[in-house]
Amino acid sequence: MTQVVTVRRRALEASEERAGVLRRSFTGSGTLVVNLISSPGSGKTTLLEATLRRLARDHRCAVIEGDVATERDADRIRALGVPAHQILTGGACHLDARQIEAALATARLLPADILFIENVGNLICPTTYDLGEDFKIALLSVTEGDDKPFKYPAIFARAEVTVISKVDLLPHVPFDLAAVEGQLASLNPGGAILRVSATTGEGMERWCELLTTRLAEKRRS
Amino acid sequence: MTQVVTVRRRALEASEERAGVLRRSFTGSGTLVVNLISSPGSGKTTLLEATLRRLARDHRCAVIEGDVATERDADRIRALGVPAHQILTGGACHLDARQIEAALATARLLPADILFIENVGNLICPTTYDLGEDFKIALLSVTEGDDKPFKYPAIFARAEVTVISKVDLLPHVPFDLAAVEGQLASLNPGGAILRVSATTGEGMERWCELLTTRLAEKRRS
Repeated sequence: MTQVVTVRRRALEASEERAGVLRRSFTGSGTLVVNLISSPGSGKTTLLEATLRRLARDHRCAVIEGDVATERDADRIRALGVPAHQILTGGACHLDARQIEAALATARLLPADILFIENVGNLICPTTYDLGEDFKIALLSVTEGDDKPFKYPAIFARAEVTVISKVDLLPHVPFDLAAVEGQLASLNPGGAILRVSATTGEGMERWCELLTTRLAEKRRS
Repeated sequence: MTQVVTVRRRALEASEERAGVLRRSFTGSGTLVVNLISSPGSGKTTLLEATLRRLARDHRCAVIEGDVATERDADRIRALGVPAHQILTGGACHLDARQIEAALATARLLPADILFIENVGNLICPTTYDLGEDFKIALLSVTEGDDKPFKYPAIFARAEVTVISKVDLLPHVPFDLAAVEGQLASLNPGGAILRVSATTGEGMERWCELLTTRLAEKRRS
């Protein structure tokens, strides 16, 4: 068990070193990089599609997709005319910084103003892997139940932004928004919480503003 | 990387050895053991609650719950008068056979006719860990999208039963049932597919019959 932990720590350290290299490069180019993490099916790709329809006119956007299998998500992004690269992990449950470096070396994604990285659908394993991003975004859809922040505390404590997604389905499911926001406030007092429906457009303006504000701040600093 | 793989393989082998011991013990006692795997929020605990309301009158049932944090799920089961033990993994993304052995040694769950093991919410990592169960059950809720079997093929290929859950929400979400059943048939030609809503009761009778039939078969063999 100790050996497993030691080896995992070494793999994490190697990945963190590469993440540092990536972060310096993104700072140099003024590229805002966000790392989207959620359960499978929380609506990461649908949120990205709705986001790109709004932002890609005035900003150079690019997307790296992580999945165990299929090119489906990258195809959905490319259909919008936005450059996208699909990383297939085989069986691995998260992305790491070395995969991001390799993707950027082979795919034509840069230069970009905003690089979106959609992690493998998994609320646990991607949490500890730094990809050189400016911040992590956790998605929680209202169909997943209002007990999830306390059940998966690490990601909700670490994400600078939590997007409560699929709020158009609130009339059809038991989901106590106030309870979820209370859990998030307790785990992550400084974190932002956005209520969004990519389907109806609710909350999309605030979400896109958050991204463009953070991009402007990065360029100023 | 090779070292990581080797150490992981050794951890898996140690877990598989313990799973073999568990399986022989469950065969001896005639206990049917099922291992429920899905994304967070697909409705594993809600399905269990509805199942126990139907089966616990005539069968001795017990539940092992796996979560990163909180006793919440075990509390929900105990509220029905069914013995339950909560395994808290800390940060680990799946259960392994040694945790099941330890749970059975400390908690009063046996003797039981059916032991339900609800794995940590994760569609990837729990797939390769044998817990000594008779079979794995994958849940996929209709709110997660109809592309998931091909995106997470390992679990859907391995699960003897796939429960398509929350079918009461079908009128409110885009979800092509036939497409999902086609993906499942391709990945897992011998697998059973059940459409279930624990909320309305749709499909619950067939699901409970499947469990009691498998229990009777195990006792006869």
